Amino acid sequence: MEYASASRQSELVGAIDIGGTKTLVALVSSEGAILARHLMPTEAGRGVDDLLERIVDALRKLATEHRVSLEAIRRLGCSVPGPLDRTRGIVRFSPNLGWREVPLVALLQERLPMPVEIEDDAHCAALGEVWMGAARNLANMVYVTISTGIGGGIIIGGRLYRGAHGYAGEIGHMTLEAEGPPCACGNRGCFEALASGTAIAHRARQAMRGEGHSFAHIPAEDSATLSARHVVQAADQGDNMAVQILQMCGKYAGIGLAAVASAFDPQAIIVGGGVAQPGGIYWQAAQEAFAARVLQPLGEVIVLVPAALGDASALYGAAALVVEKVSDV
Amino acid sequence: MEYASASRQSELVGAIDIGGTKTLVALVSSEGAILARHLMPTEAGRGVDDLLERIVDALRKLATEHRVSLEAIRRLGCSVPGPLDRTRGIVRFSPNLGWREVPLVALLQERLPMPVEIEDDAHCAALGEVWMGAARNLANMVYVTISTGIGGGIIIGGRLYRGAHGYAGEIGHMTLEAEGPPCACGNRGCFEALASGTAIAHRARQAMRGEGHSFAHIPAEDSATLSARHVVQAADQGDNMAVQILQMCGKYAGIGLAAVASAFDPQAIIVGGGVAQPGGIYWQAAQEAFAARVLQPLGEVIVLVPAALGDASALYGAAALVVEKVSDV
Repeated sequence: MEYASASRQSELVGAIDIGGTKTLVALVSSEGAILARHLMPTEAGRGVDDLLERIVDALRKLATEHRVSLEAIRRLGCSVPGPLDRTRGIVRFSPNLGWREVPLVALLQERLPMPVEIEDDAHCAALGEVWMGAARNLANMVYVTISTGIGGGIIIGGRLYRGAHGYAGEIGHMTLEAEGPPCACGNRGCFEALASGTAIAHRARQAMRGEGHSFAHIPAEDSATLSARHVVQAADQGDNMAVQILQMCGKYAGIGLAAVASAFDPQAIIVGGGVAQPGGIYWQAAQEAFAARVLQPLGEVIVLVPAALGDASALYGAAALVVEKVSDV
Repeated sequence: MEYASASRQSELVGAIDIGGTKTLVALVSSEGAILARHLMPTEAGRGVDDLLERIVDALRKLATEHRVSLEAIRRLGCSVPGPLDRTRGIVRFSPNLGWREVPLVALLQERLPMPVEIEDDAHCAALGEVWMGAARNLANMVYVTISTGIGGGIIIGGRLYRGAHGYAGEIGHMTLEAEGPPCACGNRGCFEALASGTAIAHRARQAMRGEGHSFAHIPAEDSATLSARHVVQAADQGDNMAVQILQMCGKYAGIGLAAVASAFDPQAIIVGGGVAQPGGIYWQAAQEAFAARVLQPLGEVIVLVPAALGDASALYGAAALVVEKVSDV
C-alpha cells in the first residue's frame, strides 16, 4: 500500500481521535510524521457543540504554532467510536459518547474549510498500524483492540475491509460461550463480555463481594469505581484472585483470537488496547490459550503481535484515511 | 465479477468434485452450463491411483459422448476436501479421503493434457454459488456448508478470499463454547463440534444409550451407523428427542452464523450442505437463534439464504476456478 509517493511534495492533513475520555487533535504530514498534537478531555457530557468548538480551537492553535493557515490543512480525518453511517457522515450510536445520530461530518465542515472523513475507531487503529505501526509490511492482517470494549479492523490486500455495511471486524461480538455472561450489545457470552477491561472489572467486583482482596487500596464500598487497571495493580502486588481473573480473561482472549485466525487466516493478528500489555499476566494467558486453541495449520504460521503505536494508533489511522486519498488522486 | 464476456466464444472446461463418498466429473461451458456429467462412488480405500484412473476414464467418456477430443477441454478445475497447498498443488491432509501429502495436480497432469487447478471444497462451493447460484449478484458474501463437517468460503469484492495461507473461512473451527465437546481438529466447542451432522449423530448416539427412541428403526445395538439423516427421519416421525437434538444443534448454527456476521459483515450468508435443509427443524432453529443473537445493526441488513445449487455447488465452483482464468486472460 502506498499512501504517498516519495516524489510527491509533502502535504499537511489534520487528524482527530475522539475517545470516550480523551480527544487527540494533530497535524500530520503525508509521510506519517506527527508535526504537532494536542490532548484534551472529551467531556462528552458538555455536548457535541462544545467538543467541536474545542477541537476547532485546538486545530487553529496547532496551525498557528506550525505557522500555516487552516487552509493549508488539505483534509481532515476523524476517528470516532461507532457504529457509523459513513455515506451520510453520521455517528449512528456511540454509547461511550452518549451520541445518537450525530451528523459529525456536516458539523465539522460547517466550522472548517477542508473536506472531512470519519471512520470507526477500531478501523482507524488498524489503518494506523498498517501505515506506521506493527503491520507496516502486512497486506492481510486483523487488528484487535482490547480495552473497555473489544473491536477490530480487517486489512485485506493492504486496504481496510469495511464489509457490506461498514461493520466488518466486530470481533468483540463473536460468541465464545453460548450461555456466557451478558454483553452490552444485548447478547450473551461475546468475546467482549468475557475478555475486555469491562469483563475484568466485572469479575473483580463479583470477587470483592466474597472474601477480602487488596485490589490496590480500593475499599469494598468503592467497588463501583474499580477498573481493569486496579486489577492489574492488585495482581502485581500479589493478589491471587486478581491474578486468576487476569488469567481467566486472558485465556478467553486467546480463544477469541484463535477464532479470528480460523475466520480470516491473516498474516498476523495485531493486538492493541490498554488491557493486553505485552509481558503482563493477561497477555501471557492469551498467548498460551491461542497456541493451544488455534487450528493447527494456522498455529504454525500466524503470530500475535503487540500494536506498536500505543495510544496513537487511531490518530495515525485518522490521518491515513485522508492521506490515502491524497495518494490516490 | 465477470467470468466470461458475452462476446467471447464459448469454451469447454472440465470440473471434478472429489467428495468423501462420491465423486462428480463434468464438462462445463464457460457460460456455466453443465453439458455432461458422471457420478461415481469415491471408494477412497482403493487408493489414489485407482480413483484418478476412473476420473480420467469418465472425463474421456464424457468428451466422446460430447463429440470432442480431450484436448478440446481447455482447463480442469478440481474440488477436494482440504487443507491444501495450492502453490505446490498438494492435498496436505484430508481425513475424509485418508490422504496425506498427495500431489494431486501433478498426478492429474501426468494423465491429462490440460492445465489443472485444485481448490478446497468449501471454497469451490462458495465460488459455485457466486457464479451460478444463490450469490450471483453478491460481491461480499460468506458461504457456509453444514454437512458431516462445517466449512466456509469468503467472497470479497466478487472474488474468493483465500487468506494469507489459503485457509480463510475455517468457520467450523470458530469456538462457540470454550469448554464444549471435543472436535475432530483437537480443539473443544468448535462450531463443527456443536452443529454439524457429526454433532447431531453424536448427540443421538448418546441419547440412544438412555431411554428408547425410534430413530427410524435403527436398533440400539446399531447406533454406530446412526447418521444425522436418521435423526431427521426420526424427528419427522415425531420422536421428541430427535426434535430436541435438531433444535439444539440448529440453535448453535444460528449462534455461529451470527459470529460470522459480526466478523465479516457480508451482504448475505449462503448456507449449503445436507444438514441445513430450508424448512426443516434445524433450519428453523438456526434462523431463530441467528435473529436473536446477531449484532443489532447487522440483524437488520444480513440475511441467511439457502444455497441454490444443492450437491453441485462445488462442481460449479471447480469449473469457475478455471473459467475465471479464461476470462482473466
